[in-house]
Amino acid sequence: MKKLSILTALLLFMGVALVQAQELRAIQLLAPDMTRSGTVMEALSNRQSTREFSGRMLTDQDLSDLLWAAFGINRSAEGMRTAPSGGNSQCIDIYVVMAQGVFIYNPQRHSLEPIVAGDFRTQIIPRQANVATAPVNLILVSDTSRFPQLSASDEVRTFMSATHAGLVSQNISLFCASAGLATVVTGAFIHTPEEFRRILSLTPQQRIMLNHPVGYPR
Amino acid sequence: MKKLSILTALLLFMGVALVQAQELRAIQLLAPDMTRSGTVMEALSNRQSTREFSGRMLTDQDLSDLLWAAFGINRSAEGMRTAPSGGNSQCIDIYVVMAQGVFIYNPQRHSLEPIVAGDFRTQIIPRQANVATAPVNLILVSDTSRFPQLSASDEVRTFMSATHAGLVSQNISLFCASAGLATVVTGAFIHTPEEFRRILSLTPQQRIMLNHPVGYPR
Repeated sequence: MKKLSILTALLLFMGVALVQAQELRAIQLLAPDMTRSGTVMEALSNRQSTREFSGRMLTDQDLSDLLWAAFGINRSAEGMRTAPSGGNSQCIDIYVVMAQGVFIYNPQRHSLEPIVAGDFRTQIIPRQANVATAPVNLILVSDTSRFPQLSASDEVRTFMSATHAGLVSQNISLFCASAGLATVVTGAFIHTPEEFRRILSLTPQQRIMLNHPVGYPR
Repeated sequence: MKKLSILTALLLFMGVALVQAQELRAIQLLAPDMTRSGTVMEALSNRQSTREFSGRMLTDQDLSDLLWAAFGINRSAEGMRTAPSGGNSQCIDIYVVMAQGVFIYNPQRHSLEPIVAGDFRTQIIPRQANVATAPVNLILVSDTSRFPQLSASDEVRTFMSATHAGLVSQNISLFCASAGLATVVTGAFIHTPEEFRRILSLTPQQRIMLNHPVGYPR
C-alpha cells in the first residue's frame, strides 16, 4: 500500500512536470505604456540597490515595460534598441527566470519565448537566497558570436560583453526606480555556477554577465 | 628681423601656454535642476547614437546636470551615486576633456578639478575625427585599486571595470536623450592610444574604458 502511494505520487509528480513542460507557452508582452510618468532626473535621484522583494508577481504591464526598457526596440523600422551596441551587434540576450520557468526575451515580437519549465530561481546565485524571492530575474547573457571581429582577443570579448551588459543593466535600474520596482544588479559572471549554463541551454560562445532580481519592494 | 619675430612668437606661445596652465581653475558645477521634464519612457524611446555635433559649448546647467546624471551623488548622507557599483567600490572616474583643458569630476564637491591645460580632444581617438568636434568628451576610467578583492583575476577586473563603465555610460545616454544632447559611446579601451594615459596622469591601476563625446546636435 505504501509502495503504491509512493508510485502514485511519483507518477503524479512526473505528470505535473510533463504538463508544466508542455504548458510553458510563449508570453506575448503588452506594448510599452508611453504615458508612464516619472522623469529621468527623478529616476536618477531615486536609483538605489534593493535586495528585499515582495513575492507578488509583476503586473503584465510592468513586466512588459521592464523588458522593453531593458533592451527593447525603440525604432522599429531599423530594429534599433534602447541601449547602444558596438557595431550594432546587439549581443545581449535577456533570459527571464520566473516561478513557472525560463524564457528568453524576443525583442522583434516583444514576447517571452519558453526555454524550460520549472522554478530555477534558487540556482542562479545559490549563495544569495534573496535573489530567489524576487518573482522575476533578468539574466543578461552576451553572445560573443555576434561581435564583428570574431578574432578579437578574449580580453576584448570580456570588455565588450561586460560593457553591453552594463548598458542594459542601467536601463533596468532606471526603469525600476521610475516604476517603483525594487532591483539590484549582481555579478552573475562571478557568482553563477557553471551548471546553470545547461538550464539556459547556452552555446559555448554565450557568456552569463549580470543578473537583476526584480519585484515590488517588500 | 625674421629670427626675432620667430623668437617673439615662440615666447608669446610659451607665455600663453603658461597662462593657460595657471588659469585652468576648478569649475564649480551648478546643483542639478530637478525640475527638468522628460520622462524615462521618452528618454528610452529617443535614445540613439549621434556622431555629429554642433561646436557650441554646453550651457553651465547642461554641463552640470550631465555630470550629476552620469555618476553624481544622489543620496548625500551616504555618498551613494546615480549608478551602482560592486561592493560600493565607486571605481569609475570621469575625465572631462574640453577645449581649455582636461578636468576630473569630483562628485563630493560636484566640481571639475583641473588636470592639464590645452586642447587634447583630437588625441582621445585619433581615428575618429568627429569626436574632437564635440565641445565635451567624458572619458570613463576605472580605478581597479578600489575593487574589494585586489587579488581578483585580470579577467574579473576587466569584467568589473567594463560593467561599471557601461552603467555610467547609459546614465549619460539617457540624460542626453532627455536633454536634447547628442552623444555616442565609443570603446576607448580599444581605440585610445596608450600615450593618452600620460595626458590624464593615470596610475598603472587605472584603465580607460569608454568615451562619450557630448554636444548639441549639429
